[in-house]
Amino acid sequence: MPRNRSGSGVDLHLDLDTSGGRRTGLERALRTAVATGRLAPGAVLPSTRALAAELGFSRGTVSAAYDQLAAEGYLTAVPGSSTRVAEVARPDATPPARGDGRTSAGSATARSASAPPIPHGQAFPGDHGNPAHDLLPGRPDLSAFPSAAWLRSTRRVLTAAPPEVHALGDPRGRPELREALAGYLGRARGVHADPARVVITSGYAQSLGLLAAVLAGAGTTAAAMEEPGHPLHRVTVRRAGPDIVPLPVDDLGARADALGPAGAAVLTPAHQYPCGATLHPDRRRAFTAWARDTGGTVIEDDYDGEFRFDRQPVGALQGTAPDHVVYAGTTSKTLAPALRLAWLVLPERLVEPVVEAKRVTDAHTQSLGQLVLADLIGGHAYDRHVRASRLRYRRRRDLLVEMLHARAPHVRVQGVAAGLHALVLLPDGGPGEDEIMRRAAALDLALMPLRDHWQDPAGRPQGLIIGYSTPQGRAYPAALDALCTVLA
Amino acid sequence: MPRNRSGSGVDLHLDLDTSGGRRTGLERALRTAVATGRLAPGAVLPSTRALAAELGFSRGTVSAAYDQLAAEGYLTAVPGSSTRVAEVARPDATPPARGDGRTSAGSATARSASAPPIPHGQAFPGDHGNPAHDLLPGRPDLSAFPSAAWLRSTRRVLTAAPPEVHALGDPRGRPELREALAGYLGRARGVHADPARVVITSGYAQSLGLLAAVLAGAGTTAAAMEEPGHPLHRVTVRRAGPDIVPLPVDDLGARADALGPAGAAVLTPAHQYPCGATLHPDRRRAFTAWARDTGGTVIEDDYDGEFRFDRQPVGALQGTAPDHVVYAGTTSKTLAPALRLAWLVLPERLVEPVVEAKRVTDAHTQSLGQLVLADLIGGHAYDRHVRASRLRYRRRRDLLVEMLHARAPHVRVQGVAAGLHALVLLPDGGPGEDEIMRRAAALDLALMPLRDHWQDPAGRPQGLIIGYSTPQGRAYPAALDALCTVLA
Repeated sequence: MPRNRSGSGVDLHLDLDTSGGRRTGLERALRTAVATGRLAPGAVLPSTRALAAELGFSRGTVSAAYDQLAAEGYLTAVPGSSTRVAEVARPDATPPARGDGRTSAGSATARSASAPPIPHGQAFPGDHGNPAHDLLPGRPDLSAFPSAAWLRSTRRVLTAAPPEVHALGDPRGRPELREALAGYLGRARGVHADPARVVITSGYAQSLGLLAAVLAGAGTTAAAMEEPGHPLHRVTVRRAGPDIVPLPVDDLGARADALGPAGAAVLTPAHQYPCGATLHPDRRRAFTAWARDTGGTVIEDDYDGEFRFDRQPVGALQGTAPDHVVYAGTTSKTLAPALRLAWLVLPERLVEPVVEAKRVTDAHTQSLGQLVLADLIGGHAYDRHVRASRLRYRRRRDLLVEMLHARAPHVRVQGVAAGLHALVLLPDGGPGEDEIMRRAAALDLALMPLRDHWQDPAGRPQGLIIGYSTPQGRAYPAALDALCTVLA
Repeated sequence: MPRNRSGSGVDLHLDLDTSGGRRTGLERALRTAVATGRLAPGAVLPSTRALAAELGFSRGTVSAAYDQLAAEGYLTAVPGSSTRVAEVARPDATPPARGDGRTSAGSATARSASAPPIPHGQAFPGDHGNPAHDLLPGRPDLSAFPSAAWLRSTRRVLTAAPPEVHALGDPRGRPELREALAGYLGRARGVHADPARVVITSGYAQSLGLLAAVLAGAGTTAAAMEEPGHPLHRVTVRRAGPDIVPLPVDDLGARADALGPAGAAVLTPAHQYPCGATLHPDRRRAFTAWARDTGGTVIEDDYDGEFRFDRQPVGALQGTAPDHVVYAGTTSKTLAPALRLAWLVLPERLVEPVVEAKRVTDAHTQSLGQLVLADLIGGHAYDRHVRASRLRYRRRRDLLVEMLHARAPHVRVQGVAAGLHALVLLPDGGPGEDEIMRRAAALDLALMPLRDHWQDPAGRPQGLIIGYSTPQGRAYPAALDALCTVLA
């Protein structure tokens, strides 16, 4: 990691790690320097020519890195003038005036410090108001919703579709989408997907509710769920009848030796929510062996399986035991939670009862959205969007890890190999969740504590689930700065 | 009803009833003449000048009537040449070849003659195949779906909306739609609608399921439902817990003296399904008095209240007792069942439990469709579409009534003052439902018998629920011709 001093006289103090490529390393180093304040707002950067000479890079590499950071809002580049560090909003400054008529954020974030929060995709606008800094998990980068592609596909569908598509449809969902998904899931997630076993639902919450009701109706009295895990998913399962068997989670994922009397197990194998472990191959085998031996059912919640950063994606567990594992996917992390579009790939024996439950519940999921998604998948716009999103989330993940490493080295960060969130564990003896949430409320920083993800949080590790997809441009380093401040 | 002989030598034998206006009367008479075969396919009509002179009408009136019937597919008008009767497909001809790859209709309609059909909006493509003639109830004219307006609104919404609209939303639904609906329902249906009491759902089946679950949770053990009524709605209610108390239906609508132990009553006051009566004012008062006195809840299923033809629309029952009546509306008859967009206007006490049930069931109904509908209502495109649809359905209703009057005078037709269907009662001593369904299958005519709408059909009146929205253009008189043939 060479230190450098640019020809312009500005000491950049860049911590350069070029193992991922020169341009990537330079971009990362610049982001960290801006975000940590080592490069102050308004500071003039060296010319691309001067910095290229200093670092021994090509001028094009430096220029490309500047362009990228300008596009991300870290730098401002005025043609014919110097490149400067952008004016980053500081958390201790007065929040900018808001003209959108939404409620003030102060009380909402103050509330989030005391009332039980609604985690992972279950919050809704107003739950947390409109905080100055938003590091809540559970949603993708909504500003990246592919509106133009969605509109183009809508036009294609409405132009081409016969009137019949507006009729009440098949409770399994549109054949066009089930076909497109079978191809996509096989290719992207290693799912063994026959369109005849795919059922389209109105979101994962509905998927899980339908499954729980069907399994309860078939005699399942207990379902194993990860501990910690998503609290609302526990509510959904319990509402359908089954008791919850807590499955402890460690660094290898959920423990398969704790299934007890469970007839079903709900797992997040690719990226455990919220701890972030990838289910170990031995555990994968243990769960599928259990399902085969006992007739049990594994429900694989693949909520963010598309977003794996540092290695090849881990294939779906379902691909190894399609007659025992239900695969559950969603557009909530790849496109938008508000679409309420999700899918199940079912073992043969569950197809008919799940379809009947879906039919009685709401007849079928709305058709137009299904046809548009099928068109997006068929034209590969969906793949392109996922790839572009993965790159963006990876950069954000990197900055989170670097800033915490630099400014809060006492916390442990885990689960960063994939997804849109990381778990920050608070060390014993330091400030706990309550104190951190109080500090965050004072900075108008919305955070999600770990506590509600335990069935009983007493004596459990404390931490924060950091979602890194919401703040845009300069607001992201500012939010991370606020996070580091409350953790310090 | 003057008989006429046109100057051209073609005897039109028009049965003219001009009480609704000359043009309307002439159009109706021409439609009946074509549909009944009195005017044969290919026959040359008199010139507008000759017929106008014959009837003593203005030439413009005759010309407008010809244009209308040409637009509807009854006549073909070639500029500079004679107007002729269009080549109407006859039911005993070979069904036209189908290029859409769907299953042959023969077996599907044959099946519908023996297997229990799925009535009123619960059928799905494939259930009845693709019959040559489709007079099934439960769907609007799908070919009239306002694709261009929907697409324009989608563009407006996607262009104007902040990223936040893609986030997980309020379980009550988008505020824009709840606001727009409160205005529309007050104006169009006399509903006492406060946006804070509106909950958007994914179709009436879900609305009813949520209500039944909430009422059951609050101690309701029995719900009164109309007899005959929609069989799947009974399944939905029973699945949530309550037993069904059958409410007999007569010419004044459901009987309020048969509520027995029911804690809730599900009614179709504007247009009883399937018999078509409008609930009498005395009955309306009796049901709301019962609800007030006993703390009972009336659920008003206003599935086609927008389509009343011969009088002013009957205002919603909810408007007279908003703290005791739940108003339930839907886009399934005004736009398309596949949208799965519906709404509830709730008494204050039910808002919070229904919203909680909705949240746990599927978080909320997809946002984009809600925003598009709000835009359509706000820009009055929705009102325009409903008005245009009402006019089309009225014409179709008229032709149905006229043809049955002319060719099957032994059947009783009822429920024709509103909606998209009529009930045809089969007289005792003539062929019953089984025989009629057998004859229909032979003509590839899809019909819905009344039998499954009774909890126990033994000894009940027999009939057919005729939906008149599906066959387009020339296919409609051909379908009616087939109906008259099987009834004859």
